[in-house]
Amino acid sequence: MKKIVLAISACFALGGGIALVQAAAPANEPIQPIKAAKVKNPAMAELGKKLYFDVRLSRSGFISCNSCHNLSMGGTDNLKTSIGHNWQKGPINSPTVLNSSLNLAQFWDGRAKDLKEQAGGPIANPGEMAFTHELAVDVLASIPQYVTEFKQVFGDGKVNIDRVTQSIAAFEDTLVTPDSRFDQWLKGNKKALSAQELRGYQTFKTAGCVACHNGPAVGGNSFQKMGLVKPYITTNTAEGRVAVTGKDADRMNFKVPTLRNVALTYPYFHDGEAATLHQAVDTMGKLQLGREFSKQELDDVVSFLHTLTGKQPDFKLPILPPSSDKTPAPKPFN
Amino acid sequence: MKKIVLAISACFALGGGIALVQAAAPANEPIQPIKAAKVKNPAMAELGKKLYFDVRLSRSGFISCNSCHNLSMGGTDNLKTSIGHNWQKGPINSPTVLNSSLNLAQFWDGRAKDLKEQAGGPIANPGEMAFTHELAVDVLASIPQYVTEFKQVFGDGKVNIDRVTQSIAAFEDTLVTPDSRFDQWLKGNKKALSAQELRGYQTFKTAGCVACHNGPAVGGNSFQKMGLVKPYITTNTAEGRVAVTGKDADRMNFKVPTLRNVALTYPYFHDGEAATLHQAVDTMGKLQLGREFSKQELDDVVSFLHTLTGKQPDFKLPILPPSSDKTPAPKPFN
Repeated sequence: MKKIVLAISACFALGGGIALVQAAAPANEPIQPIKAAKVKNPAMAELGKKLYFDVRLSRSGFISCNSCHNLSMGGTDNLKTSIGHNWQKGPINSPTVLNSSLNLAQFWDGRAKDLKEQAGGPIANPGEMAFTHELAVDVLASIPQYVTEFKQVFGDGKVNIDRVTQSIAAFEDTLVTPDSRFDQWLKGNKKALSAQELRGYQTFKTAGCVACHNGPAVGGNSFQKMGLVKPYITTNTAEGRVAVTGKDADRMNFKVPTLRNVALTYPYFHDGEAATLHQAVDTMGKLQLGREFSKQELDDVVSFLHTLTGKQPDFKLPILPPSSDKTPAPKPFN
Repeated sequence: MKKIVLAISACFALGGGIALVQAAAPANEPIQPIKAAKVKNPAMAELGKKLYFDVRLSRSGFISCNSCHNLSMGGTDNLKTSIGHNWQKGPINSPTVLNSSLNLAQFWDGRAKDLKEQAGGPIANPGEMAFTHELAVDVLASIPQYVTEFKQVFGDGKVNIDRVTQSIAAFEDTLVTPDSRFDQWLKGNKKALSAQELRGYQTFKTAGCVACHNGPAVGGNSFQKMGLVKPYITTNTAEGRVAVTGKDADRMNFKVPTLRNVALTYPYFHDGEAATLHQAVDTMGKLQLGREFSKQELDDVVSFLHTLTGKQPDFKLPILPPSSDKTPAPKPFN
């Protein structure tokens, strides 16, 4: 550990410590600002917003997309693993939906190529919303106001799962969080970050965190092995990307999570076992980088990570179209 | 049944049928328009809104006030009875929170005298949010942004259950739904209702529905026996107001529900066993009024009831303050 501290000191000494950090040119940074969403089809995104909040896409009539990807709470449920139909315990931590359009693929193991493909998964998963695509479509098609909206968006009132997931994805595409303090700094506002936050960013870069956490989403753009230098010990049985590719080399390979809004998306890792950012950074240092961060470095990096909280979803609570007399009743208990 | 139809016909014939209805003076109606909420303390209502949506008031970190009184769905969960902690089946239908400030008391049996008293109930109910007031307060007190808001609202940052429930009630006070089409008609806009809707209102009055469903909330202002003329048959074990007063005469006495937004608050009755408005009106006629509505009367009354849907909640999705490292983790599975 002494060696590491010395190395860092040397690194800081190189250009005069803080002075170097503050003089860093944002132009060549490994992280880029997030751009505000360009909404291609506002009517489709509006329909998708309603569907995102609609518990009638679940068998119980109690669980919506927003239950586990809660837009009031950083697009997550802030639980280790989620609660599904009949209070089943989910197998893996719910990743944030915020900025998920920037991910190279969806789910921790990347088994869905995009948000549209992802959106259909939980609806039909017996451990999550426990419905079927057919029944969900039947419910929506029985609701006159939805049929009208599908007609407005798609030209005719036909409801099918393809249109449902396309609409949900169109809404999710809008869920980007620009204008974090770090983005303000990247764009040239030198006062946007404190000295400690900048120091943390410098450590984040020099320690090698940026090797995986880079790009506009500060992650989300590669699969990496969890436990690169030392194995990750967990009782969670998820094996990562091997479940998709069948390749043994992909065992414990997971999509690198975005660090955007990471101060809101606790607890951390695919098993949700890191309760705090300090824990998460400490574990990442040891297991992925083979280094033990000092208390000061941890504090600094965590303070930097807090600057990645961007503008949160800013829209009115959607009012859902009421069921009709023909709408099949939800079945929470049978 | 013949006799009833004749009586109604006579009533309509009295002043020339529809012409009479349209000439009715709104000034002397048994139902009054709802007034828009006057927000006494906006900061307190804003704090209460966050608390209303905050799942951290539950043991699991998954259930909020909004779970069962969903403001996207008429302030209800649209389930027969609600889902509580560990997927427990609730004993009674969740009444709407919309316009609940107009109720003479809260809960179906009126066991809470006001919204503030009500708000504390579900948090500590083992079958609902399954938390304790003490633990809920500990969670909130560990969240710096909440402490700041409590300080702004109450003068100091102390969090206690009294302030929590007072704030939630202050938010709920804002949840009135003015400007329904029926209210527009009451205020003099003769074109606000169709001939059928007016006919339905006339039947609603002449048949005696208004005896209980009157005032600005079209109910909510008295306790009445469910099964007045004929007993109500149900497997639901709720016994109504006797649980509060201990008086045998109060057995099966329930608070008359508001009919405001009733087209959104399906299914109906304290056991949620009436799936549609047609069923509910039919049953009410038979059991409370001893009369069998004709198909036409049912259609008319139901069409009138649809005009009671007012302006739904209109505010931005609240963004909740994040937990701190000191915030106790939710316990969904233990």
